[in-house]
Amino acid sequence: MEPESAPPFGDMPADEFRTYGLAFVDWIVRYFDEINSIPVLSEVRPGDIRNQLPKAPPASGEGMEAILADLNRVIMPGMTHWNHPNFHAYFSITGSAPGVLAEMVSAAFNVNCMLWKTCPAATELEQTTLDWLRQMLGLPEDFWGIIYDTASISTMHAIAAAREQLTDLNIREQGLAGRPEVPRLRIYASEQAHSSVDKSVIALGLGLNALRKIPVDEKFQMRPEALTKAIAEDRKGGWRPFCAVATVGTTSTTSIDPVAEIADICAREDLWLHVDAAYGGSAAVVPEMRHVLDGCERADSLVVNPHKWLFVPVDLSVFYTRKPDVLKRAFSLVPEYLKTQEDGEVENYMDYGLQLGRRFRALKLWFVLRYFGVEGIARRIRRHIELAQAFAGWVDEDSDFERMAPTPFSTICFRAHPAGWADEDELNRLNEKLLAQVNATREVFMSHTKLGESYVLRLAIGNIRTEARHIEKAWKILKDKLSELCKPGGKHDTRN
Amino acid sequence: MEPESAPPFGDMPADEFRTYGLAFVDWIVRYFDEINSIPVLSEVRPGDIRNQLPKAPPASGEGMEAILADLNRVIMPGMTHWNHPNFHAYFSITGSAPGVLAEMVSAAFNVNCMLWKTCPAATELEQTTLDWLRQMLGLPEDFWGIIYDTASISTMHAIAAAREQLTDLNIREQGLAGRPEVPRLRIYASEQAHSSVDKSVIALGLGLNALRKIPVDEKFQMRPEALTKAIAEDRKGGWRPFCAVATVGTTSTTSIDPVAEIADICAREDLWLHVDAAYGGSAAVVPEMRHVLDGCERADSLVVNPHKWLFVPVDLSVFYTRKPDVLKRAFSLVPEYLKTQEDGEVENYMDYGLQLGRRFRALKLWFVLRYFGVEGIARRIRRHIELAQAFAGWVDEDSDFERMAPTPFSTICFRAHPAGWADEDELNRLNEKLLAQVNATREVFMSHTKLGESYVLRLAIGNIRTEARHIEKAWKILKDKLSELCKPGGKHDTRN
Repeated sequence: MEPESAPPFGDMPADEFRTYGLAFVDWIVRYFDEINSIPVLSEVRPGDIRNQLPKAPPASGEGMEAILADLNRVIMPGMTHWNHPNFHAYFSITGSAPGVLAEMVSAAFNVNCMLWKTCPAATELEQTTLDWLRQMLGLPEDFWGIIYDTASISTMHAIAAAREQLTDLNIREQGLAGRPEVPRLRIYASEQAHSSVDKSVIALGLGLNALRKIPVDEKFQMRPEALTKAIAEDRKGGWRPFCAVATVGTTSTTSIDPVAEIADICAREDLWLHVDAAYGGSAAVVPEMRHVLDGCERADSLVVNPHKWLFVPVDLSVFYTRKPDVLKRAFSLVPEYLKTQEDGEVENYMDYGLQLGRRFRALKLWFVLRYFGVEGIARRIRRHIELAQAFAGWVDEDSDFERMAPTPFSTICFRAHPAGWADEDELNRLNEKLLAQVNATREVFMSHTKLGESYVLRLAIGNIRTEARHIEKAWKILKDKLSELCKPGGKHDTRN
Repeated sequence: MEPESAPPFGDMPADEFRTYGLAFVDWIVRYFDEINSIPVLSEVRPGDIRNQLPKAPPASGEGMEAILADLNRVIMPGMTHWNHPNFHAYFSITGSAPGVLAEMVSAAFNVNCMLWKTCPAATELEQTTLDWLRQMLGLPEDFWGIIYDTASISTMHAIAAAREQLTDLNIREQGLAGRPEVPRLRIYASEQAHSSVDKSVIALGLGLNALRKIPVDEKFQMRPEALTKAIAEDRKGGWRPFCAVATVGTTSTTSIDPVAEIADICAREDLWLHVDAAYGGSAAVVPEMRHVLDGCERADSLVVNPHKWLFVPVDLSVFYTRKPDVLKRAFSLVPEYLKTQEDGEVENYMDYGLQLGRRFRALKLWFVLRYFGVEGIARRIRRHIELAQAFAGWVDEDSDFERMAPTPFSTICFRAHPAGWADEDELNRLNEKLLAQVNATREVFMSHTKLGESYVLRLAIGNIRTEARHIEKAWKILKDKLSELCKPGGKHDTRN
């Protein structure tokens, strides 16, 4: 062996870590301070960042000074700033300061919370914080929780548990293929449900055809009578219905499916009811919004994402189920080298999922819940909803704009519709161009969706820094850009 | 709306974040410094942590001072210290200082790298760093890479892509169930393969029966002729073989399957070859260890986990495939609200997986690769291998111990086997007790496995702080505890 004193073997020296730790804290302080005044969107073109990076890794170590400099010089210009108060695309999220502090600690701990034994504190903090969150959302005591990385993974596990519940088919052992006794399985979700349901049925070997999309009403909510009808048709057609996914806060319009009615149907038809409340669920922390989860107390499982609207940095998705035993039956599989003395008396979270590796994510939930408190979180979410209602009011009152969906949470679906414009295709082109020009300012970032044949703009509010002035700015930019497009020559342009 | 000045709405004030940012940096400096002198294992009993935490969340926000105090008072005593130099259980890993700094920045950015548009810098840094790593491992240029969270997810995607390659079956659309034309599908892995292969076949709807475990030789390596025979048998029996998983560094013994021979078989039989190099792959950064990936250049896909042995904090699993188009065909599904102008000319990583949410993980890989450099990383991995070889030598030379498997990397499988002990059950009980007593010191943490009927101890070396003195300490504790167990009265005790 080489003598230990010779070349460096260990980690960064303590004094250097301290120096750069402080430098990065200051960097983040500045970032959070300046984020109000920098553009939310980057102006780089594809390849711009890559072309500035060496084609090969450095043979020798470089100093942190060089890395920090390149963070500023190369990376920053290519960032889309999700933590920006004028980030209104998709869903607006927040990596809050207490969450950032927790992630520092979590990275230093670097534990894998697969077993109780491999980090008792992480397992028990996960149990505790998920019970806190359950209380905050008004969910029943028998909702057992686990943290996954994303709602996509939570939903995949929900459907896997629903599938496992078909005990007569023994799918865990025997699978779905080449078995004449296994019927085609059917799962239901509204046509507004998230694409993660589609991706889950692909992954689970059910196939996209197994997912039957149920029509929605004019408020983009699943029509329960259509669900009932679909199930009846399917049974007649030889399908075996086994699961329904209801959504509280769909991704396009944030519509809320009638969960209580869907729960009735699921109870009658013996279907697993999974509720995707990844976005909307957090609103239930606000007492007067608690009703958005009405009916969810009867769900078999529910996902809510604290990394969406609870100020927790990505990634942290919470999965609740009243049937953890079914989930465990689907996924538990303990190789010899992971057996521990405490197996009988503790929760080993690895038993409940596909992923063996589990970061210490409960820490950031704990920091955030404690730092802001239930009332502090509720106050901020309430504020977002108020801001959104104000914006919806401006849209409603302006003859050049129209709202395209109800606004039950803090995301507004709307479009420009100036007087005299009737052709849907032209309106679509106008709005597409409007969005492009609004985002080209880089001052705000909005996104779009399609509702029916209409191209619709979406403004989502959910960042902790977003105040009335940011919404006012977004509205002003929209108005100004629309005027430019519609002034003589402008409107003409959009028709090309 | 309430006036904005009234109650607090925003994030933690900047000066407070700075104060606690500095406090947590100092906390981490102290943690990294003291980790050498604190026990690696906790002494808490199940429930100890939970019982110290309030049953309900705080209504009002608490100060960071209280949170920091509870981190020390409640959480720390319940930690298993994975970043400890005497953590030798499972696989020993490292959250290195540059990685911690990167995670701070990543949490502050809080981006979702689902689309190029949603963070151009993250997408292009992922492309660049994965190409760097590819070069470091000596893999071919046509290996395209993506970052997932865990090897479990990487392997699931590998098998999903293998399944998608059965284009005649159109499994993405039609699924596996209720289709007489779909045969039972078969996948192969050695009996030493990781449980994530089992969990993947469960998730994917193939069923555990679809996974045929191939016997290993005396070095715990898959026997290629047994694979050939199994495939022939299965074809005759009406199964459709479609995938084989070879492992470079199995979890029990770190054995290396003969990848080149398995690649021959896969080519001949038209099977997708996935290589699980989650642990062992990193060793290929060391030039004289490059051979461990021999044959992998012919794999269809390969997973290597920088969060295992490349000093990157969890979680970061790298998946390479030469057929990204097949992976994309399986999982691409772009809802309207995620369509962007650049779709044709950029990489949108969300197209290649189940998870829509994607943290900015490339940042920590970039920080770590640059800070240590290729040579710095190779030097540290080489050192771990040297330390392991030294420990293996002590085992081999000691008449009270014996090695139970070859040591191709830095994990030693061994057991106590004092002179005169012959009964396998007694030896198992002795070693089980020895492990319990060694870990009860809390000075070192080792784990175990079973090989054949033998209870086997595992000592894994992979933490950046681990030096010769830590290995010497582990060895001394083992020797001392064995003496205690085997002294008059001691040995007798183990037979009860």
